Amino acid sequence: MNKIRVVILGATGTVGQRFVQLLDGHPWFEVAALAASDKSAGKQYRDAVSWKLDSPLPAYAASMVVTQCNPELDGRLAFSGLDASVAGDIEHSFAKAGYAVVSNSKNFRLEEDIPLVYPEINADHLALIETQKIQRGFKDGFIVTNSNCSVMAFLPAIHVLEKLVGVESMTVTTMQAISGAGYPGVASMDVLGNVIPFIKDEEQKIQTEPLKILGRLQGNRIEPSHLRISASVNRVPVQDGHLASVSVKLKNKAAIPDIIAALRSFQGVPQQLSLPLAPQRPIIVHDLPDRPQPRMDILLEKGMAVSIGRIRKCDVLDYKFTGLVHNTIRGAAGAAVLNAELLFAKDLL
Amino acid sequence: MNKIRVVILGATGTVGQRFVQLLDGHPWFEVAALAASDKSAGKQYRDAVSWKLDSPLPAYAASMVVTQCNPELDGRLAFSGLDASVAGDIEHSFAKAGYAVVSNSKNFRLEEDIPLVYPEINADHLALIETQKIQRGFKDGFIVTNSNCSVMAFLPAIHVLEKLVGVESMTVTTMQAISGAGYPGVASMDVLGNVIPFIKDEEQKIQTEPLKILGRLQGNRIEPSHLRISASVNRVPVQDGHLASVSVKLKNKAAIPDIIAALRSFQGVPQQLSLPLAPQRPIIVHDLPDRPQPRMDILLEKGMAVSIGRIRKCDVLDYKFTGLVHNTIRGAAGAAVLNAELLFAKDLL
Amino acid sequence: MNKIRVVILGATGTVGQRFVQLLDGHPWFEVAALAASDKSAGKQYRDAVSWKLDSPLPAYAASMVVTQCNPELDGRLAFSGLDASVAGDIEHSFAKAGYAVVSNSKNFRLEEDIPLVYPEINADHLALIETQKIQRGFKDGFIVTNSNCSVMAFLPAIHVLEKLVGVESMTVTTMQAISGAGYPGVASMDVLGNVIPFIKDEEQKIQTEPLKILGRLQGNRIEPSHLRISASVNRVPVQDGHLASVSVKLKNKAAIPDIIAALRSFQGVPQQLSLPLAPQRPIIVHDLPDRPQPRMDILLEKGMAVSIGRIRKCDVLDYKFTGLVHNTIRGAAGAAVLNAELLFAKDLL
Amino acid sequence: MNKIRVVILGATGTVGQRFVQLLDGHPWFEVAALAASDKSAGKQYRDAVSWKLDSPLPAYAASMVVTQCNPELDGRLAFSGLDASVAGDIEHSFAKAGYAVVSNSKNFRLEEDIPLVYPEINADHLALIETQKIQRGFKDGFIVTNSNCSVMAFLPAIHVLEKLVGVESMTVTTMQAISGAGYPGVASMDVLGNVIPFIKDEEQKIQTEPLKILGRLQGNRIEPSHLRISASVNRVPVQDGHLASVSVKLKNKAAIPDIIAALRSFQGVPQQLSLPLAPQRPIIVHDLPDRPQPRMDILLEKGMAVSIGRIRKCDVLDYKFTGLVHNTIRGAAGAAVLNAELLFAKDLL
Repeated sequence: MNKIRVVILGATGTVGQRFVQLLDGHPWFEVAALAASDKSAGKQYRDAVSWKLDSPLPAYAASMVVTQCNPELDGRLAFSGLDASVAGDIEHSFAKAGYAVVSNSKNFRLEEDIPLVYPEINADHLALIETQKIQRGFKDGFIVTNSNCSVMAFLPAIHVLEKLVGVESMTVTTMQAISGAGYPGVASMDVLGNVIPFIKDEEQKIQTEPLKILGRLQGNRIEPSHLRISASVNRVPVQDGHLASVSVKLKNKAAIPDIIAALRSFQGVPQQLSLPLAPQRPIIVHDLPDRPQPRMDILLEKGMAVSIGRIRKCDVLDYKFTGLVHNTIRGAAGAAVLNAELLFAKDLL
Repeated sequence: MNKIRVVILGATGTVGQRFVQLLDGHPWFEVAALAASDKSAGKQYRDAVSWKLDSPLPAYAASMVVTQCNPELDGRLAFSGLDASVAGDIEHSFAKAGYAVVSNSKNFRLEEDIPLVYPEINADHLALIETQKIQRGFKDGFIVTNSNCSVMAFLPAIHVLEKLVGVESMTVTTMQAISGAGYPGVASMDVLGNVIPFIKDEEQKIQTEPLKILGRLQGNRIEPSHLRISASVNRVPVQDGHLASVSVKLKNKAAIPDIIAALRSFQGVPQQLSLPLAPQRPIIVHDLPDRPQPRMDILLEKGMAVSIGRIRKCDVLDYKFTGLVHNTIRGAAGAAVLNAELLFAKDLL
Repeated sequence: MNKIRVVILGATGTVGQRFVQLLDGHPWFEVAALAASDKSAGKQYRDAVSWKLDSPLPAYAASMVVTQCNPELDGRLAFSGLDASVAGDIEHSFAKAGYAVVSNSKNFRLEEDIPLVYPEINADHLALIETQKIQRGFKDGFIVTNSNCSVMAFLPAIHVLEKLVGVESMTVTTMQAISGAGYPGVASMDVLGNVIPFIKDEEQKIQTEPLKILGRLQGNRIEPSHLRISASVNRVPVQDGHLASVSVKLKNKAAIPDIIAALRSFQGVPQQLSLPLAPQRPIIVHDLPDRPQPRMDILLEKGMAVSIGRIRKCDVLDYKFTGLVHNTIRGAAGAAVLNAELLFAKDLL
Repeated sequence: MNKIRVVILGATGTVGQRFVQLLDGHPWFEVAALAASDKSAGKQYRDAVSWKLDSPLPAYAASMVVTQCNPELDGRLAFSGLDASVAGDIEHSFAKAGYAVVSNSKNFRLEEDIPLVYPEINADHLALIETQKIQRGFKDGFIVTNSNCSVMAFLPAIHVLEKLVGVESMTVTTMQAISGAGYPGVASMDVLGNVIPFIKDEEQKIQTEPLKILGRLQGNRIEPSHLRISASVNRVPVQDGHLASVSVKLKNKAAIPDIIAALRSFQGVPQQLSLPLAPQRPIIVHDLPDRPQPRMDILLEKGMAVSIGRIRKCDVLDYKFTGLVHNTIRGAAGAAVLNAELLFAKDLL
């Protein structure tokens, strides 16, 4: 089989590095180009990147020469970890040039004709691609996005509850890792031994993006969910892993054992299709009363599972639980790769 | 003026050390004895204690010989930072022996005849002392308690909202400092670069103690508040300072500027009486969008003020805000000293 | 091939957990029993252990019932991660009962007839086993030890320099991870945002153990090296990885490129024998000026390589460099497993 | 008494903020202007600064309008916390304009006619000012500097040993706080749970600046000390406080009790003159085996004392000890203020 030729956009950034790592030895995709800013272009990747992962820089990438983000590059699939300040134009130009653009950037997430996909939840939203091509005059190219990283810490569980008995509203307080802010990102003087109760624009993303993902495809558009979400975000001195304390108000009654059973048995399209990066268990329910914890649980299922624990009654809404996601794997680069695998398995590449 | 002779119970512990520090040079109280476990008794305090504060051990205490927790000790006022496993018996025996016991321990907080006092909120609850003396057969002694430390991060603000328009329910997610667990307390392997979404019994305390403090004194008992509280607690790698993300549902409408004005102008009995440890501003409202933060704001008003920030709409309940308290000063030893100052000013010592 | 039956002594401790992890799927060894204190004995391992590694508890171990440290157990090889307070008697009794005891504990390291082995350096010291058996009346059993974890951060490099031109003396300042103190070990209140310039007995170990490892086997005893070592130890808020700033005085001149070449080309017996856990490169020399770093480099070669960087002139001795070792893999459990693999390959099991 | 009118250069930076804090209520100096980059000029200080200290921004400074670094400003004394990239020109222009420039920047430290002063050690080096004025054509103005912050952690102790028996050479391994790199400075992703064994140019500063400070004034120049210093620097996840592990080779024998006595009794010119910021004890010797520690000891004597502990034999050189300095108080802004107080007391302002 010929592998799909891949370009990584923003290859030197925090999410870009995860793309480089996750695509090492991928069965379907082959990295043909590492693209980044003009400052990096022309250098070998090993010299252009300030590698921040605790596994070594993959050999395949080390000596590749970084290119500019030029849609003339020969490839079919582009993963984007670009900064929002430049992602819009570049991603659009790659789609225009025939690329399937699978983006982690926020720019297009909420546009009506762009799928915002969590593949275990709304794989059917890929149907928007056809509309998108027509509306934007793309021939072969298109754009697919994944959500903000902290959304992932609770959304699969909310989806399961929605299917089970319906969810009316939810509150979520996040405790987010520093890697979510990229590099250099959060100054050590701000976060060491401290908590910062603010991340710019983050609460807005958490309150809106899930409504689209949980929405219903109707004709060529998405009818958003009516779930009401209230988010309070915090930055904590943790390397990787966004933790979320969640309370939910359900539409109908459900007993805790039934909720746990539904979470544990949940399987989605990626599991049915046995996508390479799909976790066997998309949701892992922990029994220990003090779990999940970022340091211990973010690497379960190679960082692609979401952990849920402490499911218990809430005296104000109905139930409370704690969710955890690896913010740069399942919450970012891994989410995008899984989206691309879904596209491939559905013959959309 | 003769100062009141004071015994510190549990003087070598984390809260005990704060008592030793806060009572250094106190205008009304004089430390007559430092009492601790049998293991420490007989040693000089400097040798018995593993001093963990970043200010030096006060000179007055260094060479005092630690005594057992013996109610025969000559004194009038006992501050207790005892562990709950022993606090019950010892505190009771001191009260029996004629001591005014001002305790930070949880043992008696919810007993019907024991005042649980946050002096800016419910100074009038001290009226329970009379009933208590009668019921328990105390002659001059009695017990007064303060609440769990994390409660302090939000309770003064809730009280102000209650007075303003009434509060129906609230959710709170805490991010609590390691000093709250005492010493050795939390193992570094558990909390370094991590968040632990669990603290034993803490959610229960947060959900019940405020109801008593906000309750109404009726005859010789407290009619508890009907406020519903749901708490989710987390331990974070922060030295001192409990942070809380709070959402509230109000009984009547209130505009944010009015809420801020009410919080800023709030004054209680300690301010009216100019108690020595009373903060001039019991509640400080921050304007910067990323405040309050533990590292920056816990020492405002010498650690006796509560910080509030990020007051904004909540899409599920009505409003959200972030609260912060210094957990071992305003949240523990400082709260107890303020309670004792209130007793003194009200001629109850 | 029948695998060697293995008992892990102290299986619930920090080092014991690494044994459980490293022996998962081992080609030569099979865990037959997990032994620990009486408190744990009788429980399933998953219930007895407070698992602290960031990979899940291996399935093979989870439901094993923990046994007492009883030499009647049926097995041939015992890995010991026991606390020094009990290691002496237990290890001796296992050796007496016919076990090859491969210990990470300090108790026997410096005894004349006990090999203290770093297999890339002094595999020949295993010859002491024969003497040991005779002197101690062991029939089939014997004891082999590995050194203190922080020694590993510099010793392979010192050995290479010793072979190259001779080393006269060295100073080393360590910055050691919290996992080196076991669990619960270092209190978070002591080390969060702090450095503790002291670890009990550690400097003594660092100054003596290398002399034996670098010593020469003469007849049935080891003639210790005359190297002079001065150590200054510090505990830092790092999860895993001991870092060491080292200065060395050489006996003869050597140019930096020659030193680097010698370090990079170094191979020992484990590499020649292709032992399963042997790192391909026992010493990795870093080029970047700010490496090695614990967070980035401890997992190189699966945690079995030692990292060296910043090789440069010293204005007081001759050269300086920075060394790094994963303290619970290469520095403890991994070192012991490699020792056992060496024993197996040499037909000593 | 009319206070000396002071300009703070680089007032919004990390060191600048300490100047603002330390000069609050100073008995001799009065802040007349806060000067910073063009970006900040024109704003109120409270809006221009990202205040990072845990005490509130002093009221006197909050509403001052930040000015450009313009030597036309009316004042006599300029404290400089400027970045080295701009410090040279600006400081020189202020000196030219008649200012006594007391600088924490590195630019002029090693120039022959500029005093590099640690007032307890080499107050006499201020004699260079006369030469400097002549050589540079300054009329009333001049420049005085203090050393790099990490030097302070050991230099007073070395000076005492030098006076006692002479010091031939020393090695020092530093563990330096993040505040030493300014703001934003060290990225949290680099230092959280990590140690970075490198700080650009720092080892060179540590190896050269002490030689000038310990040097002898001969006529109008300094004969540098012949002490040999070898430094290895590390950045650790500590907020404030540089820790140093030091080994020294002495010229003559000295017993540890004599060394301790000499350190404890050490007094310098600032103590003799009772300068306002002079610590009563410039060197504090700790008895506890695990001290000094940054979190516990940096604020001794309001951050102006240097802490020494763990004095013991070194098997390679002669003695070892651990030193600690508050890097932004005694190690930077406090050092400069003390230098200015010395100038004032010596009638040089």
